[in-house]
Amino acid sequence: MAGPARVSEEGLIARYFAPLAGPGADGLRDDAAILTPAPGHDLVLTADAVVAGIHYFPDDPPASIARKALGVNLSDIAAKGAVPRGFLLTLALPGDWTEDWLAAFAAGLGEAAVEADCPLLGGDTVRSGGPALIGVSMMGEVPSGAIVRRGTARLGDRICVTGTIGDAALGLRMRLEPAAPWVAVLGRAQRAALADRYLHPRPRLAAARAVRHHATAAMDVSDGLAGDLAKMLGSGRSARIDVAAVPLSEAARLACAAAPGLIEAVLTGGDDYEILCTVAPGTLEAFQAEAAAAGIPIAAIGTVTAGDGPPGFAMDDGTARVFAAGAFSHF
Amino acid sequence: MAGPARVSEEGLIARYFAPLAGPGADGLRDDAAILTPAPGHDLVLTADAVVAGIHYFPDDPPASIARKALGVNLSDIAAKGAVPRGFLLTLALPGDWTEDWLAAFAAGLGEAAVEADCPLLGGDTVRSGGPALIGVSMMGEVPSGAIVRRGTARLGDRICVTGTIGDAALGLRMRLEPAAPWVAVLGRAQRAALADRYLHPRPRLAAARAVRHHATAAMDVSDGLAGDLAKMLGSGRSARIDVAAVPLSEAARLACAAAPGLIEAVLTGGDDYEILCTVAPGTLEAFQAEAAAAGIPIAAIGTVTAGDGPPGFAMDDGTARVFAAGAFSHF
Repeated sequence: MAGPARVSEEGLIARYFAPLAGPGADGLRDDAAILTPAPGHDLVLTADAVVAGIHYFPDDPPASIARKALGVNLSDIAAKGAVPRGFLLTLALPGDWTEDWLAAFAAGLGEAAVEADCPLLGGDTVRSGGPALIGVSMMGEVPSGAIVRRGTARLGDRICVTGTIGDAALGLRMRLEPAAPWVAVLGRAQRAALADRYLHPRPRLAAARAVRHHATAAMDVSDGLAGDLAKMLGSGRSARIDVAAVPLSEAARLACAAAPGLIEAVLTGGDDYEILCTVAPGTLEAFQAEAAAAGIPIAAIGTVTAGDGPPGFAMDDGTARVFAAGAFSHF
Repeated sequence: MAGPARVSEEGLIARYFAPLAGPGADGLRDDAAILTPAPGHDLVLTADAVVAGIHYFPDDPPASIARKALGVNLSDIAAKGAVPRGFLLTLALPGDWTEDWLAAFAAGLGEAAVEADCPLLGGDTVRSGGPALIGVSMMGEVPSGAIVRRGTARLGDRICVTGTIGDAALGLRMRLEPAAPWVAVLGRAQRAALADRYLHPRPRLAAARAVRHHATAAMDVSDGLAGDLAKMLGSGRSARIDVAAVPLSEAARLACAAAPGLIEAVLTGGDDYEILCTVAPGTLEAFQAEAAAAGIPIAAIGTVTAGDGPPGFAMDDGTARVFAAGAFSHF
């Protein structure tokens, strides 16, 4: 294996990243790419970075890290009702990077990019002077004016989420406390499922079209359901959430039965990468039907109410709880 | 001053960055922005990051750091013949960041963004776990198909640069070795001019139109004239450069007279952020005239030749020299 000192940035790009380049990227032989939305469409732009030791474990498989860096951005694109078109990569490497690591990272990145039909368009490679940082800027596309915004929920709208909530937070908790009694309750497949949800976001690209057709507001759940819901509602709106309606996986249900306090991790933990959105009550069924046709389950978990307080969560035991906004934040 | 622990990411964004937001950014209250090129135009995308202690000195003024982070990207946009439209910011902060630093950074960023008519469209703020990293992804616009590529120079084309070469490299050298004898030869204004060129890139946005109209290939000079020229030429093309024709500022001319060895720093040092391009011999005058009308001096410094060797530099003393490609790289 060639040592880092013998590989130029140009050489790295040509070897590992040029094969991932999409149309408009000129094989990464230029300092810029071109991208043009289809006629009648807007580009949707987003940027999210992941940092070793903060957003992932430094010894996670490089392909998983690449998948997470791409996935957290794909999730934002999907939540806006958009289709991904391409991305720029800012790769800041620590002093002890190896070419093996980079090769595995690039392979994982390429696989995830092909799956999402979202090619690499360019970027920059630098020394981080500290832990690795992987910054992605992603471009998607929506019909002109059709982006689904975050702050546009209306009073009385039903609040919906895709998939299941809390699995990634429990996967992280399990990784930090593998000897916790609730972990022993789970079967091997259930433990693997939770671990996988933490490691590998599953951006809900298949739900984007239904979200665009029906949602009055949307965002992805990255910093925990309770905190992200509070962000989505902003001021003048609150919510009642029926915790019994929050969709849990079998593994999460078993974990919460064994350790009821875990429901707080489920509701406030991060890294779900599900879509949180609101729809008018009369369109809920049509929304669920269109998403189901695309393979995505949608659960209605509550209602937008008037008020400035944080969302109220009606718990299974009959009590009502609120969670401080921003209970979970990587920053 | 509020301590970092008391400020949420949302609060920071609302206070310091929302005032910089452009149309389509929805006041940075969403996780994504929209951007649409004018009819008949392509978007041009580029990404460059700067890291504390690598691309700038950690104690540089925060406003200067912001200007550099934006400037290195604006320079890429200009070299492609494009007009800037907006940017995404990935701000990775060290553990000891202060709100004073951030306020000054945001103020400098805002000033530079207004000057370039290039608003903030979104981004991400994270902990770096090491030194600060400022990643910018920038979007520009060119008439469809009119992007000026890097690898398209033709044999016999004249090689041109904007402005003057080597000032930033000498500014950096002066900062590292303030007691060097050549520094004492310079007047105060000349020293300040070199220091300023290192600290504050002056992206050649005003030359973009002339480059688009006349250049057969172009890139910006960020890693040194010799290395970047070799990158631009690629394989099958080389160049003869007349070092006497390379435009030097008065300060650089005096420095090189006092210490002739500095010419190597001038030709291979980085951070020029001038535009390097090629034009057909017959269009050189028209190119120079159009750029001059926009206030940008253009010097013809050599010719594209056939061959695979690195560009040959005809020195003032009659010798010919080559410089190893990639003599200077931040990576």
